[in-house]
Amino acid sequence: MIALRGVRGLRVEDVAAEAGVSKTLIYYHFRDRAGLVTSALEYVNDRAEGYADIAEDDDSPARELLLRLLAAEFQDDAAVRENSAVWAEVRAAATFDEGLRPVLTALTERWLVDLAELIADGQDDGTIPASVDSRAAAIRLTALVEGLSGRWLAGLITTLEARAHVEAALNRELLPAA
Amino acid sequence: MIALRGVRGLRVEDVAAEAGVSKTLIYYHFRDRAGLVTSALEYVNDRAEGYADIAEDDDSPARELLLRLLAAEFQDDAAVRENSAVWAEVRAAATFDEGLRPVLTALTERWLVDLAELIADGQDDGTIPASVDSRAAAIRLTALVEGLSGRWLAGLITTLEARAHVEAALNRELLPAA
Repeated sequence: MIALRGVRGLRVEDVAAEAGVSKTLIYYHFRDRAGLVTSALEYVNDRAEGYADIAEDDDSPARELLLRLLAAEFQDDAAVRENSAVWAEVRAAATFDEGLRPVLTALTERWLVDLAELIADGQDDGTIPASVDSRAAAIRLTALVEGLSGRWLAGLITTLEARAHVEAALNRELLPAA
Repeated sequence: MIALRGVRGLRVEDVAAEAGVSKTLIYYHFRDRAGLVTSALEYVNDRAEGYADIAEDDDSPARELLLRLLAAEFQDDAAVRENSAVWAEVRAAATFDEGLRPVLTALTERWLVDLAELIADGQDDGTIPASVDSRAAAIRLTALVEGLSGRWLAGLITTLEARAHVEAALNRELLPAA
């Protein structure tokens, strides 16, 4: 429902009606509206880890895994689009609603740490230059993906274009530092 | 008011009250709510051209102008922050509201053309390699700035960090193509 109507349009009674349960039950499980939004964001985050299509025992070079992980954000698939819309919406809403910032900060940090670790893995397996600043590169690649995602959701660029830009940016970002 | 409450929270009667005029006068000038949002976006866009602090007759190298233009999106200044919030909000709302897409597309295209021209100027004055794809680089730099802007507005990164990332990404984006 956040993907359809945004965070600010989210009403607990609508969620209850959609789920076919009482408002009381929603409050019992999620405490308040903020708890509901936090849980939705955590759900979306867990689901994103699934659709990147990287198995636990995948031993491809880390650089290739990194590209697959970032490119997976752009797929002609309802769940992927919905995930992306929920993230964009919560980020936009956090500008106005400071109550959303703790969960946003925590999940963003988890994502950045995962990306930075993947870059470090690539430095170990020799597919990424040792001189790359893994944290800074992770922040820029994330910002790029988020920016492209906004344009993709708004219909300004296609899935293929978004993926091509991710790959081009990744190749530039992972060049040896000057 | 869009920067404060978002597009979806925008009510014509609140705008009329804030401006101290009647709703009828608002409708007379802007026709409808969509016309009001479009005008707000155009206003914000024109204002952005002012705060980049680049004079018409500035003959600095194009590459330097490009960096100043992009870095100018991050300033500890209420108008800059407001501009950024309005853009982010209209982009996010365009995911749900197709009526916002025409003006968003038109203004985005104008910005991309301006950036690509500045890159082409740099290719003429020798500060940017001829092998850079000006349109693709403009799209990626814009997406990066928009992504950083979302994190900056949500308090996830500081103004200085955002500017440092813009400069680092610009330097990578403007390397000669492999």
